[in-house]
Amino acid sequence: MPNYVSTGPGDDCAVFSVPSEKSLCVSTDTLLAGVHFPLDAAPDVVATRAFGANLSDLAAMGAEPYAATVALTIPSGDADWLGRFSAASRTCSELHRCPVVGGNLAKGALSITLTVMGVVPDGTALLRSGAGIEDDIYVSGFLGDSAGAVKQLGRDDANADLLGRYQNPEPRLRLGAELLGVASAAIDISDGFVSDLGHLVESSGVSAVINRSQIPVSNMLVKVFGRAVALDLALNGGDDYELCFTAAQEYRDQINAIGKQLDLNLSRLGEIVSKRHSVSGARIVDADGQEIEAAGYRHFL
Amino acid sequence: MPNYVSTGPGDDCAVFSVPSEKSLCVSTDTLLAGVHFPLDAAPDVVATRAFGANLSDLAAMGAEPYAATVALTIPSGDADWLGRFSAASRTCSELHRCPVVGGNLAKGALSITLTVMGVVPDGTALLRSGAGIEDDIYVSGFLGDSAGAVKQLGRDDANADLLGRYQNPEPRLRLGAELLGVASAAIDISDGFVSDLGHLVESSGVSAVINRSQIPVSNMLVKVFGRAVALDLALNGGDDYELCFTAAQEYRDQINAIGKQLDLNLSRLGEIVSKRHSVSGARIVDADGQEIEAAGYRHFL
Repeated sequence: MPNYVSTGPGDDCAVFSVPSEKSLCVSTDTLLAGVHFPLDAAPDVVATRAFGANLSDLAAMGAEPYAATVALTIPSGDADWLGRFSAASRTCSELHRCPVVGGNLAKGALSITLTVMGVVPDGTALLRSGAGIEDDIYVSGFLGDSAGAVKQLGRDDANADLLGRYQNPEPRLRLGAELLGVASAAIDISDGFVSDLGHLVESSGVSAVINRSQIPVSNMLVKVFGRAVALDLALNGGDDYELCFTAAQEYRDQINAIGKQLDLNLSRLGEIVSKRHSVSGARIVDADGQEIEAAGYRHFL
Repeated sequence: MPNYVSTGPGDDCAVFSVPSEKSLCVSTDTLLAGVHFPLDAAPDVVATRAFGANLSDLAAMGAEPYAATVALTIPSGDADWLGRFSAASRTCSELHRCPVVGGNLAKGALSITLTVMGVVPDGTALLRSGAGIEDDIYVSGFLGDSAGAVKQLGRDDANADLLGRYQNPEPRLRLGAELLGVASAAIDISDGFVSDLGHLVESSGVSAVINRSQIPVSNMLVKVFGRAVALDLALNGGDDYELCFTAAQEYRDQINAIGKQLDLNLSRLGEIVSKRHSVSGARIVDADGQEIEAAGYRHFL
């Protein structure tokens, strides 16, 4: 345990200090067997997906991981399962410097609720609500891979690289930290890009125009599903755990530099516009600026 | 939301500040339908039991409630159920000044995981590990009522007062706060008195001798079950959410005064002794000091 944790697991509460001039960012997320991971998922997949999904929420605030609690419910006290789960949790915890300070173990249908806590300098957390008119819209990485993997789950010829993106999501913590003072708003993509961008513009009281040709889809996703399905998965699939963020145009060079520094694809794919006719949400246009009804396109009414 | 919460529910994380010179106490607890409450429990019972059980962990540290997150899993999006649950949660949250800053809602078998956060002046949290030889052992309130209610669940002639103790546990937050600087160790009684005292003495590396005649059982419990069963429920039943704590003998007057001030029964029922033959845990003796094998007596080997 790091030295700011004065009492770790084993007492009624964990006790730790929070640095002065830093705020605590807290998120809690439940993953259920059969919904958020397959019923027969390996224990390390349960752990890595839970940590990935939760830490992604810290990344979206620009917060540095600080502590976590793990509430695990399992059908039986399977020592082997628990051992492998614990080992994978420890690996995630160490990799992301997020000590597990407390937890709970109960007997029932398999599920896991993580509560992650991170720290960010007071007043700097990246909120969903800060997007301004004419801000650029960016997304990290490639979208749709994880949703593509879900479509292939259980198949013998499933693409291993796609599966890895689903089983082992990488929270964009370093990107979030670099975006403090640069991005005007941020959200992590868990429900799907169009849906989560919808949440961001809704919170900011604005609308968005997205250029479909700029939506980043990986070559492997296109290879497996073809371009049309790949684009639909990118727009509407979930579990990407990439960051969608907005920034004023003056930050373009700086954001390019951040992408290069982190060796991470950052796509500028649209622009924040004012809310039209009380309709928030995102419009998706083609390269000519024509609004299109893409497959799976959803309007936010 | 209080002014230290800069971002409440609705963003990727809640964001709040922690006062300088205070430590954060964090506990997480899962309650499952069919295990920790009946499958058909009313939504307000689910909420009040979840808050009671979790806030009791803060009480055991002497911490003041500060913030909570609620992860709820329900089988269907029953608006009436959710409305009643939310109303009861709000009542608990307001009563104990513990704002719900974030949460998660998932679809599945009914369960609730609360993560509560409290604050305590740095270095003062009541730990399980501080009990010293010759310290007095105390318990608050009356033990066994909740376990008695569980035995009566579903019966038409169930005792309403006992049922209230089960459905609406009262976390001993004010007591915990008063015990800062007074108690040497504390734990809340969730598993059962003997078991939880066992955890306390185990953490402290000591043993305990409990005088059976001093164990506080309510008149209503004795009336419903008779003295022998009542005593067994008090020793080994669970869900009491009373505090068991130790204190040096010099604090007897002060502890009496705290009990009077809070109008709360505080029973001094034993003494911390050194660990015998590497055996930690509690011995229970009768009024003559003879060790007894009470019904349900458990030795901690």
